Amino acid sequence: MAELSAESGVPVATVKYYLREGLLPPGERTSPNQARYDVSHVQRLKLVRALREVGGLSVAAVGEVLKAIDDSATTYNALGVALDALTPQPDEASEEDRAWARGLLAGLAEQHGWKLHDGDPTERNVIDVLCRIRDLGHDELIVRLDEYAALAQELAVIDLGITTGLPTVERIVEAAVVGSVLGDRLFAGLRRFAQEGESRRLFQPGHLPGTDR
Amino acid sequence: MAELSAESGVPVATVKYYLREGLLPPGERTSPNQARYDVSHVQRLKLVRALREVGGLSVAAVGEVLKAIDDSATTYNALGVALDALTPQPDEASEEDRAWARGLLAGLAEQHGWKLHDGDPTERNVIDVLCRIRDLGHDELIVRLDEYAALAQELAVIDLGITTGLPTVERIVEAAVVGSVLGDRLFAGLRRFAQEGESRRLFQPGHLPGTDR
Repeated sequence: MAELSAESGVPVATVKYYLREGLLPPGERTSPNQARYDVSHVQRLKLVRALREVGGLSVAAVGEVLKAIDDSATTYNALGVALDALTPQPDEASEEDRAWARGLLAGLAEQHGWKLHDGDPTERNVIDVLCRIRDLGHDELIVRLDEYAALAQELAVIDLGITTGLPTVERIVEAAVVGSVLGDRLFAGLRRFAQEGESRRLFQPGHLPGTDR
Repeated sequence: MAELSAESGVPVATVKYYLREGLLPPGERTSPNQARYDVSHVQRLKLVRALREVGGLSVAAVGEVLKAIDDSATTYNALGVALDALTPQPDEASEEDRAWARGLLAGLAEQHGWKLHDGDPTERNVIDVLCRIRDLGHDELIVRLDEYAALAQELAVIDLGITTGLPTVERIVEAAVVGSVLGDRLFAGLRRFAQEGESRRLFQPGHLPGTDR
């Protein structure tokens, strides 16, 4: 148990809690006070840690993701359940706005070979964001949607390319969770740096003569 | 006042609150009970709304951003203050990890012409994320950092390209706030769609024979 905790970076008390909650299968009992755990326990614990600490999921939500991994016939299904669990529920917009956003999205999906699943959390989230942008009157963002989608496609090829080298479904789902949550934060941060550079280029007096304002 | 509220989408009671807090300059008094507001009031209110509702900033933080807009000699400075205000304060990692992350970042900055400002919120946020990814043992993400940075650079060129057509500093900052916060959410959503598509391509049985696992 102490080794398991050290290997996975999860405190002993938390490991015991996960055992009680069924997030971790029991070890092989070797004496009344001892049990043997193997590498599959370490992998499972690391995944639980990523889902809890990085993904911010509740113990119940982690249970659902693990169930999907254990029950799913394919990595594709398991990944779908895990990524859906990461997306928060969005607010409601008017039906007219939502139909408009859904139309935009359908166009992008056709162009890039994406599959829309009616009412899935990612779709609802994107539709909600598009409606908010429109509501705030920032159509200039919508105009560039095609370009954003093309870059998102390039990014996803990198994201998924990373996972194909990993040995188990658990490692793949864990890398996808870390790569999605921390990867979004990382990418948003890099975007800020690059925006700052562009802002300097466009708006800083002296940087390009005549473009200061 | 009623017109101002309708034009900006901000409720009358909230407009009054913003007037009291100094987020909105007073209108020109035309009678004891009436004041005249012009297009600059509508623009300021829309910006306040974006900072509050989209950026999630406190009234005090909005005040700082507005002060920067009014006091800044350049759009570049005003944008810098606004974008910094959007970035949450990260946790602490070990000094060794931070030095490692700072080194990575310095390499990217040199490559893309980004400017690092020691201790600014974006830098601390990216350093924190890099340290967390390393701590979780996902070096496979770090290996692709160059490719992420190159895409972030392409995205920022689009982002800033959008703002150059806008007429006032207020509109530019507002578009940057909406484009950063909602733009990050939008882009993360598009990334999810594209990931799903790639996951299907790579992992769904039957989609590419022999690649199911």
